[in-house]
This record gives sequence, structure tokens and C-alpha cells, in this order.
Amino acid sequence: MKKIKVAVLGCSGLVGRQFVRLLDRHPYFEPSCLTASSRTAGKRFAEALNDPAGASLSAATSGRLIRESTVDAVAQSGAALAFSALPAALAAELESELRRAGIGVFSNAGAWRMAPDVPLLVPEVNPGHLELARRQQREHGAFIVTNPNCVVSGLVLALKPLMAFGLGAVTVTTFQAVSGGGRRGVSAWDIGGNVLPHISGEEEKVARETGKILGRLAGDHVESSGLEVYPSCSRVPVRVGHLMSVSAEMARPAAVEEVAAALAAFQGEPQRLRLPTAPRRPILVPDGSDRPQPLLDVDGGDPERARGMAVSVGRLRLQGRRIAFFLLVHNTVRGAAGGSVLNAELAAKKGLIPGAKHG
Amino acid sequence: MKKIKVAVLGCSGLVGRQFVRLLDRHPYFEPSCLTASSRTAGKRFAEALNDPAGASLSAATSGRLIRESTVDAVAQSGAALAFSALPAALAAELESELRRAGIGVFSNAGAWRMAPDVPLLVPEVNPGHLELARRQQREHGAFIVTNPNCVVSGLVLALKPLMAFGLGAVTVTTFQAVSGGGRRGVSAWDIGGNVLPHISGEEEKVARETGKILGRLAGDHVESSGLEVYPSCSRVPVRVGHLMSVSAEMARPAAVEEVAAALAAFQGEPQRLRLPTAPRRPILVPDGSDRPQPLLDVDGGDPERARGMAVSVGRLRLQGRRIAFFLLVHNTVRGAAGGSVLNAELAAKKGLIPGAKHG
Amino acid sequence: MKKIKVAVLGCSGLVGRQFVRLLDRHPYFEPSCLTASSRTAGKRFAEALNDPAGASLSAATSGRLIRESTVDAVAQSGAALAFSALPAALAAELESELRRAGIGVFSNAGAWRMAPDVPLLVPEVNPGHLELARRQQREHGAFIVTNPNCVVSGLVLALKPLMAFGLGAVTVTTFQAVSGGGRRGVSAWDIGGNVLPHISGEEEKVARETGKILGRLAGDHVESSGLEVYPSCSRVPVRVGHLMSVSAEMARPAAVEEVAAALAAFQGEPQRLRLPTAPRRPILVPDGSDRPQPLLDVDGGDPERARGMAVSVGRLRLQGRRIAFFLLVHNTVRGAAGGSVLNAELAAKKGLIPGAKHG
Amino acid sequence: MKKIKVAVLGCSGLVGRQFVRLLDRHPYFEPSCLTASSRTAGKRFAEALNDPAGASLSAATSGRLIRESTVDAVAQSGAALAFSALPAALAAELESELRRAGIGVFSNAGAWRMAPDVPLLVPEVNPGHLELARRQQREHGAFIVTNPNCVVSGLVLALKPLMAFGLGAVTVTTFQAVSGGGRRGVSAWDIGGNVLPHISGEEEKVARETGKILGRLAGDHVESSGLEVYPSCSRVPVRVGHLMSVSAEMARPAAVEEVAAALAAFQGEPQRLRLPTAPRRPILVPDGSDRPQPLLDVDGGDPERARGMAVSVGRLRLQGRRIAFFLLVHNTVRGAAGGSVLNAELAAKKGLIPGAKHG
Repeated sequence: MKKIKVAVLGCSGLVGRQFVRLLDRHPYFEPSCLTASSRTAGKRFAEALNDPAGASLSAATSGRLIRESTVDAVAQSGAALAFSALPAALAAELESELRRAGIGVFSNAGAWRMAPDVPLLVPEVNPGHLELARRQQREHGAFIVTNPNCVVSGLVLALKPLMAFGLGAVTVTTFQAVSGGGRRGVSAWDIGGNVLPHISGEEEKVARETGKILGRLAGDHVESSGLEVYPSCSRVPVRVGHLMSVSAEMARPAAVEEVAAALAAFQGEPQRLRLPTAPRRPILVPDGSDRPQPLLDVDGGDPERARGMAVSVGRLRLQGRRIAFFLLVHNTVRGAAGGSVLNAELAAKKGLIPGAKHG
Repeated sequence: MKKIKVAVLGCSGLVGRQFVRLLDRHPYFEPSCLTASSRTAGKRFAEALNDPAGASLSAATSGRLIRESTVDAVAQSGAALAFSALPAALAAELESELRRAGIGVFSNAGAWRMAPDVPLLVPEVNPGHLELARRQQREHGAFIVTNPNCVVSGLVLALKPLMAFGLGAVTVTTFQAVSGGGRRGVSAWDIGGNVLPHISGEEEKVARETGKILGRLAGDHVESSGLEVYPSCSRVPVRVGHLMSVSAEMARPAAVEEVAAALAAFQGEPQRLRLPTAPRRPILVPDGSDRPQPLLDVDGGDPERARGMAVSVGRLRLQGRRIAFFLLVHNTVRGAAGGSVLNAELAAKKGLIPGAKHG
Repeated sequence: MKKIKVAVLGCSGLVGRQFVRLLDRHPYFEPSCLTASSRTAGKRFAEALNDPAGASLSAATSGRLIRESTVDAVAQSGAALAFSALPAALAAELESELRRAGIGVFSNAGAWRMAPDVPLLVPEVNPGHLELARRQQREHGAFIVTNPNCVVSGLVLALKPLMAFGLGAVTVTTFQAVSGGGRRGVSAWDIGGNVLPHISGEEEKVARETGKILGRLAGDHVESSGLEVYPSCSRVPVRVGHLMSVSAEMARPAAVEEVAAALAAFQGEPQRLRLPTAPRRPILVPDGSDRPQPLLDVDGGDPERARGMAVSVGRLRLQGRRIAFFLLVHNTVRGAAGGSVLNAELAAKKGLIPGAKHG
Repeated sequence: MKKIKVAVLGCSGLVGRQFVRLLDRHPYFEPSCLTASSRTAGKRFAEALNDPAGASLSAATSGRLIRESTVDAVAQSGAALAFSALPAALAAELESELRRAGIGVFSNAGAWRMAPDVPLLVPEVNPGHLELARRQQREHGAFIVTNPNCVVSGLVLALKPLMAFGLGAVTVTTFQAVSGGGRRGVSAWDIGGNVLPHISGEEEKVARETGKILGRLAGDHVESSGLEVYPSCSRVPVRVGHLMSVSAEMARPAAVEEVAAALAAFQGEPQRLRLPTAPRRPILVPDGSDRPQPLLDVDGGDPERARGMAVSVGRLRLQGRRIAFFLLVHNTVRGAAGGSVLNAELAAKKGLIPGAKHG
């Protein structure tokens, strides 16, 4: 089976390098084009990385020359798909140009997430929304598929199995890691020994993206779910892993054990289709009264081979008619690059990617 | 006017040294007896402190010899009152012995907070509960008065003016500083770059102490308020200042500005009585979209001379029928030592302390 | 006595705000012009600060409108002097233009430190070098006086009294705080839980600036001292306070106590002249086997009213023929703004500032 | 080939769990007995760990019941060897009892390091000192072999190849991670955002252990090397990895490139014998002007499969007649458990372990 050539746009940032790591030696895809801003273009990938973690990459990938982020660079490389870790402003234009050029885009950028014809996809939660990509393909010859905001990526995984309990208002307070702001985005002066109780635009994204993902596909668009989501977002001095405290109303009373069992047993399309990047269980429920912790649990533990694709849930307890818990998501893997890679794997299996035999 | 001699029990811990700082050069009280465990007893206070902050103390206080924590040590010093920063286990016994010996106790320890005849007091919120101390005095010749848990101390200050809006269920997620665990209580290995989503017993305390403080005095005890409080408590790598994210249902709809005005205008007995440790405004509402922050706001700003006695509220916003905000309390001042000093000042003004002319 | 109007250039950065704090209510100077980049210009100072620390400023200062950094802005304000916290590139041009316009400059910027006719001044160490300013004044009508790099500012204070012991090679390893890189200069992703063993250009500055300060004035320039200084510079996750480990060869053997006494007793011109910003003792030698620590000692303790102008030395011990110790300097006060304010006070006392009656 | 049964004493601490990780699925050894204090004894290993990292262990190891640390527990398990991560006080007695019971001890504890007949071993540096173990075996029937202090373990690896340049006085300042103090040993209150410029007894250990390792075997003891080593030790808020700044006099002048080449090319007995835990290169010299960094380099990079057994050296530069550099060692692997496992592998190859066919 021949691998599909893909590009990684914005490869040198914290999300970009997760894309490269996940796509290197991938069974379906081959990263044949890496792009970045003009500041970084011209370097070899390993050199731009300046991180021994790069040493586990294949020689082809670590030695690949970084090109400047343009449609031409992608087209000339022969890539059929592009994975985008571009900044939102740049993504708005470049991603739509790529689609016009017939190159499918799986994007972590926020630019197109709320566009009516663009699926905002978490394969375990709303795989049917991929139908919107098929519509785009018919109309434009290619598509843009997006993964949600890092917080939402984790939150909806836990909310999905909770829907069986008659989910009501969901109150969420986040403890977000500095990597969510990018490599230079959060200054040590501001966050060291501190908590910043605001992340610009984040709460709005959490509410509206959750609504779209849990919404119902209605032909050419998605009707937002009416679920009440009340987020409060903050930044904490943690490197990787967005933790959140969730308190969710349940219409149907349930014991803690029943909820825990439903979360731990939850599986979706990626698990049934055995997609390469899918964790065996998307929701881990670690033992221990003080878990999940960003430092201990962000990778999701070894046995499941989750490597950042499973979320962890702990401290499940009842609060009146509510279920409360802490939830942890790896913000640059499941909450970003890993989300889009899983989206692409689902699209390949579903026959949306020309040349992929995985349909 | 002659000052009343007081003791500080457990003077060398993080709360104990705040007691000493607040009582040194206090207009009503004079710290004539400092006690600690046998490990520290025998040192001069400044020496035990090993902190240049001690340099601002009076010579009498910084040079005072630390005694071992016993009733005899307190009694021999001629202290009429004792401020207690003892560990809960030791406090249970020693505080009741002090009361038996006729020495009034203002305690930060958890041991007696829920005892029916002991007031759990925040002077701006439930000054009337001090009546329970008068009952104790009649029965035992002296009293124990407690301040609440550090989180509760801050929370109830904000909830009190919100009651005018028909307060419903209150969801709270805390970000608690390491000083809350004491000087040696939280290890750097566990918390550095991490969040610990559990503090043993904390959530139970938040719910039950809030209930008692907001409850109604019914003769010889307090009937707990029926307010639903749903806390989720965590530890973050911050030194001082407990931040919390609050989302509170309001029966009466109100604009954000109206709520902000009610919080900023709130004053209670300590302000009306101009108690020495009372902040001019117990609730500060700093400008800025990213406030309050532990590092910036924990002392409460200079102009109010709050020095840790005012809480700060920010990011007020509506969430459906709810009001949401972040709240910050100085956990070792308003949430501990400062709370008890203010309690003692109120008691003095109310004539509960023999020899105090402040009644 | 009328105060001299002064400008603060680059007032909104971490060093600029220390200049404003130190000059507000200063007995000689009055900050009548505050400048910053075009991004900040147009705001009131307190608003630009977004920090409750600003609340202790006078109303005149906190309400002052920030102008853009130009010679015209300074000249129109009537300022006779400018204190500069400008970035090096901007300082190179603007500071020399100000001198041409007859406005004396006291600068923390690196641009002119090594110019032969510009004094690199630490008043306790090389007050005689101020003579170079007098030469500039004769030639240009005004002068530029610089304070050294933050590390050097602290290091030379300790080396000066050690010279009596026949100082030989000095090995220094620094632990520098993130504030040294400016408010946005060090990212949390890079430094959180880490040490960065390199600060670009810093080691070269430490060697060459130390040489100039300890050098001999030879008419119109300074002959660099031949002292061997071997620096290794690193960044640590600390907010304020540069710590350094020093190991210095002594030609004349001495007991630890003798060296400690020489350091603690050291005083210079600022102390003899009782300059307003001078600490009573420039070198503190705190008790305690684990001092100085950035968190505990950076302000220099209260009793000396040092407020960041005194350095602290601890752990003095012999290593063969060497004396070894740890040294702490407040990098934005003694190592930056405070250094230049002290320089200006010395210049005023020495009659270099027209209109100042302090000569 | 049958594996040799071994015990891990003090298995639940930070060093103990590294022992277990390194010995699980080891080609020579099989961890058949795990011990800890009475507080932990009785739990299964994975349960005591409370860390998903444990998930990569074999089922036999993760499910093994922890026994209390006694000679009987080890003897009953049939272990021929014991790896010790005991606290020094307990180690002094228990390790000598184990030797008396015919059980060889490879210890990270400090108790016996300086005993004349006990080798203090770093296999790349002083493999010949293992002869002392053979003497012990003849006299006592078994032996104690120790690895040095964590700082020394890394330092001597770099000093060994530098000896060819005529090594003179070595000045070292350390930046030590909190894991060096054990899981509960360093409190967040003390170290968060701070540097502690003292680690009790550490500087003495660095000087004297370096002297023994680099010393000459003289029959029944080692004559300490006369090398001057001047250490200054500090604790920084880093989790894992001791960084140090080294400035070493060289009698023979050399270019930086020559020194770098000598370090990178260095190999010793473990490399020649291809011991299982030996890194291919014990000294890595990463590219990049700001390396090594604890967060990036502590594991030693993937390509070498170093996993904490290689040290990293960077920022090599001349300082007059000296060579200066930063050095990083994984303090709980090469600086502790990994050091002793490598010692045991060397002993096995050298025929010191009865039953091992590896001699």
C-alpha cells in the first residue's frame, strides 16, 4: 500500500511538532512537506527543533528542509493533504486557498471551525459530521476538516457518555497549561507562581464549539446543541495538560460507580475501526484519590498506548443531582495535532481521501 | 488605655507568624507569650523566623523567647487571651483547657469550628453569632471563637452581598496556594509544574462551614443555611493566595454592573466600628480583564490599606441566570490569622473581653 | 529647595517602573515626563501598569500621561535630566541626541557603557570616574552616565572590599531571575522547571564591565583593571534577584570572620554623603546557613531600609587560598534603576547638575 | 542462562523506583524481593507507586508484594544481591548485616562510601577499584560496592577524559533538582520561585568522593587524588537533573574543539564490555548554544539509548588557561540507581557474582 503524501503547515511550533511526530512512520501518511514562517524556513527540521526528542524521528523527516508556508510549496511537494498548525489569521486565507487547489486540509486552527459547511470533528463523538466534508468535496473538489479547541476536545469526550444520564447544565473551570499559548505565548514573569484567570476568547470558544460538536447534522449544516455550558478559563504554571473541574447536572440519578463504568467503557468509531492513532479506551479512569494530575497522567499511561490521545477522569463524586469530576486532556495531542490526525484517519477509512485504500 | 496581654500559640508556622505580625504594635493587644512545639521552644522569635520580614517587628516581639505550647506557659505570662495557630489535634485539647483556665481563645484551628456553642465568625458576615461566645462565657468563664477555613473566609464575604439577588446553588472550584498546607506540607516534587486535584477533607469543610456562617442563630446553636455549595478543591504551585472560580445562581436577574456595585459597596460591622484590622472595603473589584491574580492582588493593594484583609473579585460576568467571577483571598491573613484578630477586635468592642475599654 | 524635573524613558517596562517608583516623592527630583513606545503612549501611568503596586504612587505620577519616547517630548516637559530604561538599540541614538539637546542622561541601557568618555558608575566603588561626566559636560554641554549590567552592579560591590585581601582570579556562576529579560523576554515554556545555561552576551558584559569599573581613571578614559573574572551565566525560574556563586583567590590569607567583617563594614561615598537612595550598609551579611535566598533577601531587609539597594552575602567559606560565597543583588533596583538614581544623587551632590543645590 | 535473584531495598522512594525500573526485565538480574519501610510494606509495588509510569513494568514486578526492609526478608527471597536505596542511617547497619549474611550489596546510600575497603565505583572511571570488592569477598564472604553522590557521579565522568589535559583546580557550582532530596525532602514553600544556596553536607561529599574515585588503588585502600575541587552546591526548582557549571584549570593548553572531541569520544570498560545498562557514549555533547538543559537533556536523548545514563556537556569555552562548561547528570539514574546497576553488571562480568556466567 502506498502512503499518501501530506504537508505539515506551521511545523516548528508546539502543535506543529506534534503533527510531525505523529505523522512520521504513520501507516497511511508520509510527511513530505514541512512549512513554517520565513524566519524558520531554510533549516532542516531537526535543527529547527533544538530538542533531543527529535532524535526518535526517521532520518527522512528529521533531515527534511523546511519551506515557507505557501500553497505553492505544498502543491510542488505532491502532498494530497495538509495538516495545519497555522496561526488563525494566516489559516483563514491559506487553508481556503489549499482547498481551492484541491488539497484537503485537516486543521487545528480556529479560522474555519464555525463555518457551516466545515465539520468540527471528534471522531468518537460526532463522526457523522464528516458528511459535511463530503459535501465540500463535491462542491470545491476538496475539504477543510477542523478539530476543536484544546479544552473542548477533552470535554466532549467525557460529555458524550454522560448524555445517557440526561445531561443538564455543565459548569467547567479550566486549569490550562502554558503550551496552550504556544512556545513564546506566555511569559514567565506573568505566570511563574501565579494563576491568570483569563484567556482571551477561550470561554466563548468552549461554549460555542461544544454546542456544534454535540449538535445535530441538518443537511448542509449543524444545529447547535442546546446544552448549557458555563466555562471559566484560567492559565496555570504547568507545561502540558489542560485540567478541568466539571460539575454536570444529570436528569437521571445515578451512582458514582455507574457513571465511572460508563466513562471507562466508552468507545467510538475510532476504536471500532481500530484507527492507528486511536487509544484503546478514549477515557481512562485512574485509581488514586488525587488523580488525574497533569504531570502524572497527561500521556495517558503506557498500557493503553494512549500517548496523549486518551483523556483521564478522576475524583468522580455526586454533588446533589450533579456528577462532579476532574478531567485532563493532553492539549497539544488530543487537543490539537492528535485530534486532526485521528480525523484524517477516519476520513481515509470512510473513503474521503483519494488514493487511500483504507476506505 | 492599657493593652491586653495575649498569647500566640504555634507562633512559628506560616499562620502563627501572621498572628505575631498583626498583633505586634496592635492598639488593643500585646503579644506577651509566644509558644511553639518543643523543637522550636527556647529560641528567640526572630531567630526561629529566619526571615528578614521579621526585621519590621518591635524589639520586644522579635526578641521574645518562645515557650512550649502549654496552658501553664500561657497562664504564667498573664495573657488574658490566646490566638491559636495550633494543629487541629493539639488544638482540640489545649484550647478547651485554656477556656477552662479562664483564657479566651480566638482560634484558626479546625477542632472546635463545628461545635454548637462555638461561633464560627466572619465579622462582616455573621457578627450576631458572637452571642454564642457570651453564652460560653457565662457557662465556662471564657470562650472559644473560631475563624473558618481559608477558602470559606473569602467565599462568604462575596456571598453575603450576593444574597440580595436571591442566591441559589453556588459552584466553586478552588486554586489553593501551597502555604495553605503549612511550611513543610506540600512537597516540591508533587506540586512543581503540576496541579493536585484533591485536598483531603477540604470540600467537606467548605460546604459545612459556609452553611454554619450563613446560618441563623437559634438560641444556643446555629441552624445551618440551606444554601447549596458545590466545591472542587485543588492545589496549585502558588505561594500565597487562594483563587476560586465561582458560578452562583441568582433568583433575581441583575446586570453585571449592579452586582459589581453591590460587591464593591459592601461593608459590615468591622467597617462601621472602624476596627483596627478591618479593611476600608472588604471586597475590592480591581480594574483589568485578567484580575484578580494571586501575585498581583493577594495583599489587596495599598490604597485601602488592606494588607491581606480584603478579598478581590474580578471577571464578573453572567452565565445564563448565574453570576460568575473569580475571587482571591489571602489564605494566611483573611483566611486565618487576620480573621481571628478581627474576631477579637469585634469581641473587644462588644464588651466580651474583660479589661478592654473598647466595648 | 526646588526639585529638578526629570524624565523616565521607557517607563512601562520592569526597570522603567522601578525608576518611577524611586523618583516619585524623591527629595531632589520630580518625574515630570514619562515616555514609552507608541504602543503604550497615550495611557495614564497607573493604567499602563495594571498592578496594585502603583497605588502607593503620588496622584501626580500615577495620573501622568505617557508620551512617546522622543527628544522633543523630554525637552517640552522642561526636564533637565533623563533616566533611561530604553532598549539598547533605541538608547544608542536617543541618549546621544538628549545629550546634544543639553539634557543629562542617567542610563541603564548598554549602548554607551563602554564608550571611553562615559562613566560606568557604582558610587560606592568608583565615584572618581564621575570626573568623565564633567569632561563630557565641558565638551557637549551635558553628559551620559551609565550604571552597569545587573550582575556586575552586585558583583563589584562585593569585590571592592575584597581588594584589600589581594584579589586574584574570580570565578562566578550566576542564577539570574526572569525579570532580567524583561516582562515578555523569557517564556514560561522555556524556563518553567528548567535552567537555561546561557544568556546571550552576558558573560562578555560581566568580564568587560567589571574591568572598567575597577579600572583606573587615566585622564580622558579608564584603563581596565587586569582582574581575571570568569563568569558562567544562567537563567533560573525566579522572578526577582540575581544570585551568584563566587570563588575568589586571595593573595593575603584571611579568616572567614575577617572577610565577613570587611564586607559588612564596607561603606562608600553614598553612605558618607547620606544620599537619599543609599542603603546604610551596601552589603548585608544575613545570619543563617542557607542565605541569601532570592525570595527572602532580595529587598535587603527592612531595618537597613535597603529596599533593593543593598546586596546580601552568605555562606562565606574558605576553599584553599580562596574565599567563596553566594551573593544576591536586586536586579531591577541596585542592578538597574536604583543604580542610576544613586548615580544621579551623587552627581547632584558633586555639583554636576545645574540647578541642584546639593553640590 | 539463569537470572540472578536480587532485592531492591527502599523500593518506593525516587531512587528505589529507578532501581526497580532498571532491573525489571534485566538480562542478568531478576528483582525477586522489594522492601520498604513498615508504612509501605504490605502493598503491591504498582499500588505503592501511584504513577502510570509503573504500567510499563512486567506483571511479576508490578504485582510484587513489598516486604519490610530486613535481612530476613532478603534472605528468604533467595536473593544473592541487594540493591540499596536505603536512608543513610538505616543503610549503615543493614548493609553490613547483609554482607555478613553472604549477600552482596550495591548501594546508593552514603553510609559506606568512604570505608577504606569499600569501592566507590564509576565503571567508566575507576573500574580497577572493584578489586577492593574481591578483597571484601575473601574476608567477609560478600561485599559492599557503592556508587557516589549524584553530583560526583556526573562530575567524574567529565573529569576523567580531561585528565589528559593536565587537570588543575576544578571550580564547580551546582544547580540541583528537588528529586535529589527525595519525594518529601524539599518543600514547595521553600523552593518555589527560589534558589536555596546550601545543601547540608553536599560540598564536603563532592570534594571527598571525587578524591577517592580519582585516587590510586594502593593494596587494601585508595589513596585520595590530590585534585583540588571547589564545590558550591545549591537547590533549584527543577524536578530531575543536576546541572553544574564547571571551570577547570588545564596545564596543557588546548583548543575548545580538542576538548569537545575528547569528551565526546570518551569510552570506558562498560562500553568495551557492552554492559546492558551502559550508554554507547557516556558523555553527550549536544549542539545548540543553550544546552544542556535539565528539561531537554536529562534523559540523554534517544539515539544513544542513554535513558539517563549519559551525561551531557555544553557551552565549552576557554577562560584564560581554563576550560569551562555546563554539565548535566540524571541524578536518580546515573547519579544513583543506574550507577549501582552498572556497578553490578561490571562485577558480574568480572566474575565477582557467584552464579553469574558473565565473568
